[in-house]
Amino acid sequence: MSQSFVPVPAGSDFPLENLPYAVFSTQSNKPHRLCVAIGQHVLDLKAVAQLYPHPVQESLRAETLNALMGLGHEAWDVVRTQTQKLLQKGSELDQNVDLKEVAIIPQTDISLHLPAQIGDYTDFYSSIHHATNVGIMFRGPDNALMPNWRHLPVGYHGRASSVVVSGTPIRRPLGQTLPEGAEKPVFGACRLMDFELEMAFFIGGPGNRLGEPIRVDEAWKNVFGFTLMNDWSARDIQKWEYVPLGPFTAKNLGTTISPWVVPTAALKPFLLDNFPQEPEVLPYLRQSVPFNFDINLEVSLKPSDQNEALISKSNFKHLYWTPLQQIAHHTVTGCNLRPGDLMASGTISGETPDSYGSLLELCWKGTKNVELPGGKSRKFLQDYDEVIIRGHCEKNGLRIGFGECVGQVLPAHPLPQ
Amino acid sequence: MSQSFVPVPAGSDFPLENLPYAVFSTQSNKPHRLCVAIGQHVLDLKAVAQLYPHPVQESLRAETLNALMGLGHEAWDVVRTQTQKLLQKGSELDQNVDLKEVAIIPQTDISLHLPAQIGDYTDFYSSIHHATNVGIMFRGPDNALMPNWRHLPVGYHGRASSVVVSGTPIRRPLGQTLPEGAEKPVFGACRLMDFELEMAFFIGGPGNRLGEPIRVDEAWKNVFGFTLMNDWSARDIQKWEYVPLGPFTAKNLGTTISPWVVPTAALKPFLLDNFPQEPEVLPYLRQSVPFNFDINLEVSLKPSDQNEALISKSNFKHLYWTPLQQIAHHTVTGCNLRPGDLMASGTISGETPDSYGSLLELCWKGTKNVELPGGKSRKFLQDYDEVIIRGHCEKNGLRIGFGECVGQVLPAHPLPQ
Ligand SMILES: [Ca+2]
Ligand SMILES: [Ca+2]
Ligand SMILES: [Mg+2]
Ligand SMILES: [Mg+2]
Ligand code: NI
Repeated sequence: MSQSFVPVPAGSDFPLENLPYAVFSTQSNKPHRLCVAIGQHVLDLKAVAQLYPHPVQESLRAETLNALMGLGHEAWDVVRTQTQKLLQKGSELDQNVDLKEVAIIPQTDISLHLPAQIGDYTDFYSSIHHATNVGIMFRGPDNALMPNWRHLPVGYHGRASSVVVSGTPIRRPLGQTLPEGAEKPVFGACRLMDFELEMAFFIGGPGNRLGEPIRVDEAWKNVFGFTLMNDWSARDIQKWEYVPLGPFTAKNLGTTISPWVVPTAALKPFLLDNFPQEPEVLPYLRQSVPFNFDINLEVSLKPSDQNEALISKSNFKHLYWTPLQQIAHHTVTGCNLRPGDLMASGTISGETPDSYGSLLELCWKGTKNVELPGGKSRKFLQDYDEVIIRGHCEKNGLRIGFGECVGQVLPAHPLPQ
Repeated sequence: MSQSFVPVPAGSDFPLENLPYAVFSTQSNKPHRLCVAIGQHVLDLKAVAQLYPHPVQESLRAETLNALMGLGHEAWDVVRTQTQKLLQKGSELDQNVDLKEVAIIPQTDISLHLPAQIGDYTDFYSSIHHATNVGIMFRGPDNALMPNWRHLPVGYHGRASSVVVSGTPIRRPLGQTLPEGAEKPVFGACRLMDFELEMAFFIGGPGNRLGEPIRVDEAWKNVFGFTLMNDWSARDIQKWEYVPLGPFTAKNLGTTISPWVVPTAALKPFLLDNFPQEPEVLPYLRQSVPFNFDINLEVSLKPSDQNEALISKSNFKHLYWTPLQQIAHHTVTGCNLRPGDLMASGTISGETPDSYGSLLELCWKGTKNVELPGGKSRKFLQDYDEVIIRGHCEKNGLRIGFGECVGQVLPAHPLPQ
């Protein structure tokens, strides 16, 4: 690919081959609008919408990505191709000094917002290492994986209203827990506050009508792009509340996603074979194409008075169930998906202890310390801790990055009197 | 209250004291707009918006109830008072023959739509009789209620996209089940298709910010109004999938609500003491005011070739947890609510077998027949069965009705080859 007229520093997450979408605003221009990242700048898509083919222009002038998501994969290709063309040296845009001046904006000058209006958010549980770890901790090694786990991508409906963009602080929740050995629950601040390293994808395409499942081999048309996610979890609250209908207040306190939505097309060079599945899955989940990706994931923890420290290195490729299988299963009974719906992977843990995607696993249910520099350590999150999730693909000198998904834990409110 | 110039037949669900809201359109005027029901007619609120105080006018010209819901309880009172005034004999509207002609429309001439854009939908599990019945069937009488059940209103996040308005057909789903005694799951049409008799309320008010719980004694400000609900359930699919994260594809196939949203104010005459709670709940759930209602609920089943038959009579008052406790618990860890969010009660079963709110309970897990006229019977729903839920309050000659929540089961799609 030729070079962009916008400088892309070595090691940047955002070369011309990436072009992740986001929603932004500036101090001097408050309305939300779309952009793509290029190096340390963004291209304001509203400012250049007139340079795109007519049928996609309106979606580029919108305040969220929902309209573009809804146009479908052919329109996504049209937009991506034209954006790459416009950002190349000597392009129509490069030659238009006045337009360039307003349309290319340093990332230091922008605020980033939620990329889409999320109609529904679903959280899967698709890492076999994570599900096995949690199973061993709570049920022992003999019954670690539930009987249904290898037959369907287990998932649950999450809370869409509390999905927030990277940088939003998360308050340690008050809630109900049953202390070890107690007969009655108590009310107080969460003691076992955790993160979950996840990735999530946004649904695009026209969606499907109620009662009409999406077939696994058609589902790629519905995958608009990917973000990083931190599914904040109150472990002590979760343990008491989740039987029999699943996690509720332990999860709806907040879920953070990265602002950048990396288009599926940008991940093509990093395609991998799907995770081997044994026993063979039912036909509606059988997938003839690979849809797994080599995406390096990292979690760092930054105590308030200290530099950040890397505490986990994982990879998207550890997921047992693919996004296409997740879509096929989600819709199998007829559930309708809409552009802007968010589908999360579940905690992504690898095989080795340094690749676990939650403190619950890293501290093995509180039985060991997660060491930090300077003699500090953690079991669960402390007030003012910042959790930073990063992700990138790298191969033959090409780096496609996801930016950061960051959130800081604020202290709980005082107990009401 | 004085009489309306619109005739209200004896036994009508919709006297001047009710005025439930809905979203409608007509053949000759397709855009969605707001109305209230009065007798066998509706009042088109967009057509008369200019007769309301200026601050609420815009919300009455909207395509959904979300804007009005968001204005808060003082605005709801203003609108309700003015609507009652306008509909009285001799009112400004009564005297304006031209306006009356366009603004008062027979219900036979309108189509009804979803009353709001539902940001998030939550389903509680708040009937102690229902939870106990299900517990006895699946875990035996000694462990019928889970240890957490009397301490918090158990609930889970549902799927907002598949909430549909009364009248929408529901397709029998295909899905994954584990047949009794089998080692491996199979794929096929749901065999244990069920309804759940529920009520639901819409959230109004400005909502709360993430991290800021709503206190139980403030929560009344967030209850805009109530609808009937049928939470369609695929029992065989649910049984196999729901461990450990809760119901997913067994529920997201469709959830039907009645089109009419009865304002909380209209239910005031039918207030009852709250259900007695033992043991005492934690302080954040302690409620100083009554917020329970005497609402008669009925379920009828109509086979395709036969008249409908009443199969259950229940009442809202059987709910152990109140809407205010549900709101306080839902937000206790900081979850933000938004106008238009939908909160369902869970299946409302009474104490006696004729008051159970699902076929699962009525046929006691398939061990007995639910008798229908003409020698027919049911255990679970058959194709083309229609389920009709109705509700009304009645006292001292005043009847406040909810209309109907109707849905028909369509046959499953053929299995993909
Ligand atoms: Ca999760
Ligand atoms: Ca239910
Ligand atoms: Mg969360
Ligand atoms: Mg449902
Ligand atoms: Ni903003």
